[in-house]
Amino acid sequence: MRLILIGFGTVGQGLVEIFQQKAEQLAASYGFVPQIVAVATGTRGILHDPDGLSLDVLLQAMQAGGLQHYPDQPRLRREFSSAEQLIRTVDADVVVEVSPTNLQHAQPALTHFQAALETGKHIVTANKGPIALAYPQLRTQAQQNGLQLRFEGTVMAGTPVIATGMELLAGCQMLEARGIINGTTNYMLTSMEGGMSYEAALKQAQDLGYAEADPTADVGGWDAAGKVLILMAALFGKTVSLQELSVEGITAITADDIRAAQAAGERYKLIATVSASGGSVRPVRLPLADPLAQVMNATNAITFRTDLMGDITVIGAGAGRQQTGFALLADLLAIQRISVSK
Amino acid sequence: MRLILIGFGTVGQGLVEIFQQKAEQLAASYGFVPQIVAVATGTRGILHDPDGLSLDVLLQAMQAGGLQHYPDQPRLRREFSSAEQLIRTVDADVVVEVSPTNLQHAQPALTHFQAALETGKHIVTANKGPIALAYPQLRTQAQQNGLQLRFEGTVMAGTPVIATGMELLAGCQMLEARGIINGTTNYMLTSMEGGMSYEAALKQAQDLGYAEADPTADVGGWDAAGKVLILMAALFGKTVSLQELSVEGITAITADDIRAAQAAGERYKLIATVSASGGSVRPVRLPLADPLAQVMNATNAITFRTDLMGDITVIGAGAGRQQTGFALLADLLAIQRISVSK
Repeated sequence: MRLILIGFGTVGQGLVEIFQQKAEQLAASYGFVPQIVAVATGTRGILHDPDGLSLDVLLQAMQAGGLQHYPDQPRLRREFSSAEQLIRTVDADVVVEVSPTNLQHAQPALTHFQAALETGKHIVTANKGPIALAYPQLRTQAQQNGLQLRFEGTVMAGTPVIATGMELLAGCQMLEARGIINGTTNYMLTSMEGGMSYEAALKQAQDLGYAEADPTADVGGWDAAGKVLILMAALFGKTVSLQELSVEGITAITADDIRAAQAAGERYKLIATVSASGGSVRPVRLPLADPLAQVMNATNAITFRTDLMGDITVIGAGAGRQQTGFALLADLLAIQRISVSK
Repeated sequence: MRLILIGFGTVGQGLVEIFQQKAEQLAASYGFVPQIVAVATGTRGILHDPDGLSLDVLLQAMQAGGLQHYPDQPRLRREFSSAEQLIRTVDADVVVEVSPTNLQHAQPALTHFQAALETGKHIVTANKGPIALAYPQLRTQAQQNGLQLRFEGTVMAGTPVIATGMELLAGCQMLEARGIINGTTNYMLTSMEGGMSYEAALKQAQDLGYAEADPTADVGGWDAAGKVLILMAALFGKTVSLQELSVEGITAITADDIRAAQAAGERYKLIATVSASGGSVRPVRLPLADPLAQVMNATNAITFRTDLMGDITVIGAGAGRQQTGFALLADLLAIQRISVSK
């Protein structure tokens, strides 16, 4: 399977590391032999080698500062005007799109998606932008061209909630999905359950690298809201805008609120909810018997409410270099399974 | 998709009822239009109609006592010496095998599986016997013939643990699976948590139809052990016998044991464990922070322990007419997805 990698930051490098570690097992167990024929970064160069790029040398080049450190090869090319041009001119099976997310206009990823679909390439992505803003149209376009568009990594990293909701539960009517889909705030709420103040919990999350220096995206509920857009598109085939969601973060939750909930046998969680009628993110006091109430620290979870099966809950990691790298691998293997069955 | 239904009890009828309820949605959303061309029961007749059998009339005939009540049709045939002969002579895409489970010799289902694979038919089943006893060989045979052998309904009904463990987590190394895979005993343990004696909890489970008059299969751990054999085959590609498992049920658990666990902040659960080195079923005192400790009543759950993703837990229904019927539908839709992608 020949891959073009668009974006080569944490997630892209995480995927390449998994390819390195697992080459033998992936070939033996699944007949899966990936070959990276091109890589495009935002500002650190573009490479194409129809003979395939060396995984080791790619990672070394990035550690040294950029793809200019990748040594010349007989058929190596570096001169491309853009990632879009690369996608349109290079022969490959799949574009792995992991450039930075933009939830306002989804660019430049949307251009990359269009280039891939117009030149007959499957897409695997962890980029929220195009899925959140344009999934229904993109799906139609992919289907018309016999191509797959897979995005497991956009919600809860490699914990397979997208495939579960869209494929494994196909045949059920999806009534609602609700979950804990931001690890930072769940970590903070867990710390506060243990007696910490909001400020101390935030400081700790920042020290551990969960929260950024400006924590607004997490604590304001906006990271979760972005994923709500994706779940809305994936499960209900609808695009909505962030402005149409009701979004409330955890910034107003105090140690007193947490204690009051505890005294009532309940627990605060930042709950994202999606149904055909809309989506929201808000702090909810859950009874301890709710499976979501038991999801602690940075772990994430989603409960799918369906007609035939009732509630199905999936709990797992929600972020991480290796975990998001695995999401991309899982999507590539899903494409492989269908190709092998042909 | 033309189906042969082998076995037409609770589960088979559950599937037909879902086909009735969802005909329109299944056709519109997935292009899935099932046609049942043959049905075989153990003692209540066999039918084949190449023009397709009426779902309504099939269910009415069974309510009236058997397939002899299905009215004659121009091309209807009733004379078959066995389900095996039916499978070998009838033209169809998939055999849905839901005859009664036998975990000693897997018959007659194993003969049905062989007939299906030798005549080019996919298999979808909720029958534990052939998977527990012969999965590796059956899988090889299916693969060699380009056929699918799917068995979501054998463990936790339609809660998609088989597809999650085998397909969605492909690429991860599976280190261990552990879970609560018997609803009756979990219901009883939940009742005992609430203060009930073992005897009262058993009586209640029997009154509610969870436990049978002879509850040994459930309370002795043997139902869970049968599913351990399947998880062993599915996740580790190995067949082991029931005798090789370490199996202990909940019959020795007393109200005092439950109280002692509660006092220590723990909870008894009947835990099935599977790894490459073997399997077991035994009561375990879990800390409340373990996601499995929070799975109450008749709900089931499995935690997959993997290298790349850490723990992934799936919680949902573990039994039921509709829920097992959905498992069969999910497997049929999975076959449909691959066919459509061809």
